[in-house]
Amino acid sequence: MGMVGGGRGAFIGGVHRMASALDGQIELVAGAFSSDPEKGRLSGEDFFLDPERVYSSYAEMAEKEAAREDGIDFVSIVVRNDLHAEVAIAFLEAGINVICEKPLSYSLEEGKRIAEVVEKTGKVFALTHNYTGYPMVKEARAMVQAGKLGRILKIVAEYPQGYAISSLKEASEDGSISNWRMDPSVSGISNCIGDIGTHAENLAKYITGLEIEELAAELTAFIPGQELDSDGNMLIRFKGGAKGILFASQISTGDENNLNIRIYGTEASLEWHQEHPNELTVKYADAPREIHRRGNSYNGEVCGQNTRLPFGHPEAFIEAFANVYLSAAEAIRDEIEGNYPRESGYDFPGIEEGLEGMAFIEAAVASSKNNAAWTKLG
Amino acid sequence: MGMVGGGRGAFIGGVHRMASALDGQIELVAGAFSSDPEKGRLSGEDFFLDPERVYSSYAEMAEKEAAREDGIDFVSIVVRNDLHAEVAIAFLEAGINVICEKPLSYSLEEGKRIAEVVEKTGKVFALTHNYTGYPMVKEARAMVQAGKLGRILKIVAEYPQGYAISSLKEASEDGSISNWRMDPSVSGISNCIGDIGTHAENLAKYITGLEIEELAAELTAFIPGQELDSDGNMLIRFKGGAKGILFASQISTGDENNLNIRIYGTEASLEWHQEHPNELTVKYADAPREIHRRGNSYNGEVCGQNTRLPFGHPEAFIEAFANVYLSAAEAIRDEIEGNYPRESGYDFPGIEEGLEGMAFIEAAVASSKNNAAWTKLG
Amino acid sequence: MGMVGGGRGAFIGGVHRMASALDGQIELVAGAFSSDPEKGRLSGEDFFLDPERVYSSYAEMAEKEAAREDGIDFVSIVVRNDLHAEVAIAFLEAGINVICEKPLSYSLEEGKRIAEVVEKTGKVFALTHNYTGYPMVKEARAMVQAGKLGRILKIVAEYPQGYAISSLKEASEDGSISNWRMDPSVSGISNCIGDIGTHAENLAKYITGLEIEELAAELTAFIPGQELDSDGNMLIRFKGGAKGILFASQISTGDENNLNIRIYGTEASLEWHQEHPNELTVKYADAPREIHRRGNSYNGEVCGQNTRLPFGHPEAFIEAFANVYLSAAEAIRDEIEGNYPRESGYDFPGIEEGLEGMAFIEAAVASSKNNAAWTKLG
Amino acid sequence: MGMVGGGRGAFIGGVHRMASALDGQIELVAGAFSSDPEKGRLSGEDFFLDPERVYSSYAEMAEKEAAREDGIDFVSIVVRNDLHAEVAIAFLEAGINVICEKPLSYSLEEGKRIAEVVEKTGKVFALTHNYTGYPMVKEARAMVQAGKLGRILKIVAEYPQGYAISSLKEASEDGSISNWRMDPSVSGISNCIGDIGTHAENLAKYITGLEIEELAAELTAFIPGQELDSDGNMLIRFKGGAKGILFASQISTGDENNLNIRIYGTEASLEWHQEHPNELTVKYADAPREIHRRGNSYNGEVCGQNTRLPFGHPEAFIEAFANVYLSAAEAIRDEIEGNYPRESGYDFPGIEEGLEGMAFIEAAVASSKNNAAWTKLG
Repeated sequence: MGMVGGGRGAFIGGVHRMASALDGQIELVAGAFSSDPEKGRLSGEDFFLDPERVYSSYAEMAEKEAAREDGIDFVSIVVRNDLHAEVAIAFLEAGINVICEKPLSYSLEEGKRIAEVVEKTGKVFALTHNYTGYPMVKEARAMVQAGKLGRILKIVAEYPQGYAISSLKEASEDGSISNWRMDPSVSGISNCIGDIGTHAENLAKYITGLEIEELAAELTAFIPGQELDSDGNMLIRFKGGAKGILFASQISTGDENNLNIRIYGTEASLEWHQEHPNELTVKYADAPREIHRRGNSYNGEVCGQNTRLPFGHPEAFIEAFANVYLSAAEAIRDEIEGNYPRESGYDFPGIEEGLEGMAFIEAAVASSKNNAAWTKLG
Repeated sequence: MGMVGGGRGAFIGGVHRMASALDGQIELVAGAFSSDPEKGRLSGEDFFLDPERVYSSYAEMAEKEAAREDGIDFVSIVVRNDLHAEVAIAFLEAGINVICEKPLSYSLEEGKRIAEVVEKTGKVFALTHNYTGYPMVKEARAMVQAGKLGRILKIVAEYPQGYAISSLKEASEDGSISNWRMDPSVSGISNCIGDIGTHAENLAKYITGLEIEELAAELTAFIPGQELDSDGNMLIRFKGGAKGILFASQISTGDENNLNIRIYGTEASLEWHQEHPNELTVKYADAPREIHRRGNSYNGEVCGQNTRLPFGHPEAFIEAFANVYLSAAEAIRDEIEGNYPRESGYDFPGIEEGLEGMAFIEAAVASSKNNAAWTKLG
Repeated sequence: MGMVGGGRGAFIGGVHRMASALDGQIELVAGAFSSDPEKGRLSGEDFFLDPERVYSSYAEMAEKEAAREDGIDFVSIVVRNDLHAEVAIAFLEAGINVICEKPLSYSLEEGKRIAEVVEKTGKVFALTHNYTGYPMVKEARAMVQAGKLGRILKIVAEYPQGYAISSLKEASEDGSISNWRMDPSVSGISNCIGDIGTHAENLAKYITGLEIEELAAELTAFIPGQELDSDGNMLIRFKGGAKGILFASQISTGDENNLNIRIYGTEASLEWHQEHPNELTVKYADAPREIHRRGNSYNGEVCGQNTRLPFGHPEAFIEAFANVYLSAAEAIRDEIEGNYPRESGYDFPGIEEGLEGMAFIEAAVASSKNNAAWTKLG
Repeated sequence: MGMVGGGRGAFIGGVHRMASALDGQIELVAGAFSSDPEKGRLSGEDFFLDPERVYSSYAEMAEKEAAREDGIDFVSIVVRNDLHAEVAIAFLEAGINVICEKPLSYSLEEGKRIAEVVEKTGKVFALTHNYTGYPMVKEARAMVQAGKLGRILKIVAEYPQGYAISSLKEASEDGSISNWRMDPSVSGISNCIGDIGTHAENLAKYITGLEIEELAAELTAFIPGQELDSDGNMLIRFKGGAKGILFASQISTGDENNLNIRIYGTEASLEWHQEHPNELTVKYADAPREIHRRGNSYNGEVCGQNTRLPFGHPEAFIEAFANVYLSAAEAIRDEIEGNYPRESGYDFPGIEEGLEGMAFIEAAVASSKNNAAWTKLG
């Protein structure tokens, strides 16, 4: 694989590298790691790459890798939101499969442009909504699909983080921004909902299959001098009648990466906490609460396929991320061998999930600007 | 004390009796336990009462107890919502102090009538919002008051229960109602928000002191054939700028009495779970999370005063309820001795909290009928 | 009931009073609360007693109450260990039933003297091993009795407390003792094992029915200047082949009242934590872990009978204590009515459990003195 | 690196490969994966190795790799206990560094032979006591070293697993053994204590630095027809006066990989649970309990150096394992560059820890055979 972005010191680039390396199936061989050529070069050294395949621009990389006989099978895109579209399109059009960081793009419109190119080229496009890679999330989905919850009545999805509270307290006097996610010219129309709210939305959709009909959102820019939201709360109406609450926050002091979901059905309810990912709680009206734990044979097939270690040997974030890579790699292998897409489908988030996420962001921002009026997804 | 309602088999009447008996300060000596005279009489026997003081109507009881030299110091009212006003007013006007179940009344209007009589008579009126009686809730309040949270930014209050899911699944064909809380002629305009949503609202107010400016609510009557809500979700704007989410439910399968609150401030955040009431979690941006536990000397004075047992010897629901009784008993003692109200105040919910609760219910119902439009509290 | 000991400020006396008052079935009417007559008198006032029935000695109380037509039905003994035997014997011989604090007595020998008098008089003798009063402990026992665990292989019972760590750090220079439990002339041959180790032993026995064959114990007197143990660890061999670990401690810094038990069987295992008493965890080899929660209809009959509140409304220490009182009260009522003992038995700890506890203490101390050699229970 | 053992389907070999691959620093280039040549060959294909470097015996591998200019820098040994010594010695004597699975060897005697060769050759020898690789375990150690616990009084180390309960229930009639750990000719004198008890022992030593003076152990072979222990409980006396309890089990039904440790000091206590490895609980006598969480800046330097992801993005078993690899790799790099050992030392378990583990196993078995008599470590 190749990588665009993710040079020295970048958090998410490192995650992609670890996740792709974990299973010994994928090798990083090329990259355009930084707009700063020196930093790019040094990053290439860090990763033991052939200097010839360390590029100073993604355009050059797409062109040259496409031309090599041993060129990369796919590229990982870990640049800022505003560059997703142009980079993804460049590689797709060069005939190279893509694994892309979420959110899909700077705007829904740009997302649709990517989607057109995906369709036109027939290449694989995967989006790293990594939280759906957790085995117990897959088990939750399997339980819903098997009807164990009955009819779903209510979903509570939450994603409070607190890391931005220091920005709130020590806002720079000149309005300068330390984190590009807070910069609308880079991040798009939303910070908090775009960065993490979409994970919660995607998680709810992945597990339940329910689509959002409309939402009523209140986003708040708590940080002085910043335009974009650092907190968002919303009511949701799902198609089919289920009701929902979704909230995300970056100013929830002391919360870390507290993505949680509760799904209430007529027969049973589910509860999953990202910070304790190896457990899935199942609640009944009149039977003992159950804790389903990763690695046990009572879990379903898909859960088992996404598990590397025996029970009690905890797996976590990187393994879940690696599951997205492994599933996408299956599709990429099929694509290279001319068998893409296979009829039985794949289990990774792609362009559709990306567009849903962008539509969700735009609806949330529009609703919030309209005093939390109910807003349908575009 | 005397009791109106709460005969054999009634849940909440038993709680009131246990809570009042716990500390050996309050003795049940009279009652009108049931509209069924035989059931009332048998209840009186259960409680070892003088048969002469077991009445067949609350009106008779108010009159006769007021006339006795050794008449009751106060009455506990544990009847259905629609009778709160008339019973409370009868006792207040007879010169007898009142401890009343929540919600205050059938409607805000009736609540205001009670309030007028409370003011006119100068008697003590306590409302058993019992969850504020927990020592660690009092500690949470003390921490907010001492400024340890900084400015409060966000509140998430939740109260999911699942007990009504069986009604949803096995709704009676003829629309008959097993639980009076579902009957609008008895319960008022709301079931779920009225019964438990108000506890969540009261808890948030008690701890933070923040008043609700307006709310946008979606209430759902999930149970076939029923008119009243069995689930409600809302966005809240507090005066001063804090944002909130509040939800309550009776159809959250497998949840029991899952009242939880999270309060996020600029300096620290709090988390409290009613089902594990002896712990209060305090979270910081850059310091270890803390678990404050009941019974320790590091807790504040009020927390300590509301504690009966050493650390590690858990206290629970009844003790919290008894704390409301003990605090109200202080006021009642003052009233009897002519010193009511004392300048330093008391720590129990009263008529003001009751009116807030009724205004909250009415705003939530009005908002929901108006498609979750923002609605100010009356 | 009457009470000996437990005057103003005594912790355990207050617990007994709250536990006995909770259900409105038992009334405190007499007492000899203190060896200090003034303190005894004031305690009587606190409890609203007839001054005539507030005695300055237990001997006087036993004699005079026995002589009254309306004399007490039973006495609660909450004095120091070294006085248990003489007080209990005095009341039993006066024809008055007894509820006594644990451990049974100062020594096994004294315990046997009590046992003789219990047998001779045919009176009820209950011992407040209160932790067996918890509903989920009773559920655990019912599960074992129903064979749900299969054959029991192993028991891990632990009871770490940390309250004495301050004594360890600030031991008085002159060797004076602040806590009578550390004084061998009052407490007997053991402090830690006697005070709390016996609770762990009794809990294991109550749930599993397994008897200790022999034990190998190491007790440590960590507190400078003190002779008695403040910590004890032991290996246990149960009759029938199960193995055990039991430890108790008063110097486990930061632990509060952390009584826990794990019982491993061939078919399932149980785990119960006193500080979260409303839950019982059941673990299987190849099925989801279960959390059984108090108040649900799936629990057994005995669990339900010992429950006062619906699920999710937590019960705790006092209610468990009150369950011992209620069960003992049944026996006492039978005794008064001439029907004691009833054939179907009772569910409260009595003289047998007291003797087992004393034998356990003596074996543990003997083993420890003998360098943890295996020691059979006397 | 090269690998001996760990072919297709072997659990621990896969873990070693994932752990070594995670950080992109170590590449698997050679192996002797199986005594079955075909299986070895196929394993080589699985791992994309040059067939020339897939060997049919470890001896051949050691010889040929030592002879290559681009030969492996170190070998990972993941064979059965009885082969550790011969394989390790072969590579060490061929001048190749070693990372070896625990326990060190079949017997203490064999372990000492390895130690002699390590000393003689001056090569790096690392032992994968992987649980000490967890960041919060390193934080625990740093806290002890900084004196935050005061003097350590007591250690409770436990490691219950339940996976062997099925063997207990369905023991083969002919005494055949499905798991080589149960076979004394392969595993050595102990199964349970050797396989997992040593992890608990090593963890206690790593965090506290305390050495075991003597122990009193009771090991039990619960599985019919098997000679080796499947359960072990012991009392421990540490040098300096601290007391300990250590137990390990394979027949604790429903427990998974439940390694836990509690360390009690005069100033504070620590608690860590392997199944929730990102948290470390710190308890005080009179201050709120603290939860220290991985990834926060309040943690110490070593903890931070062993962390890959931000807080709330959980790390788990593989990352901890990879930390052992990374630390050993530092030493190996030093060795290759002629700078081994560096004065400031390294942070990975080596030959010394291996010998301690073997001495621990031998003492435990000897004590158990001697009716749990106190036995000093050899």
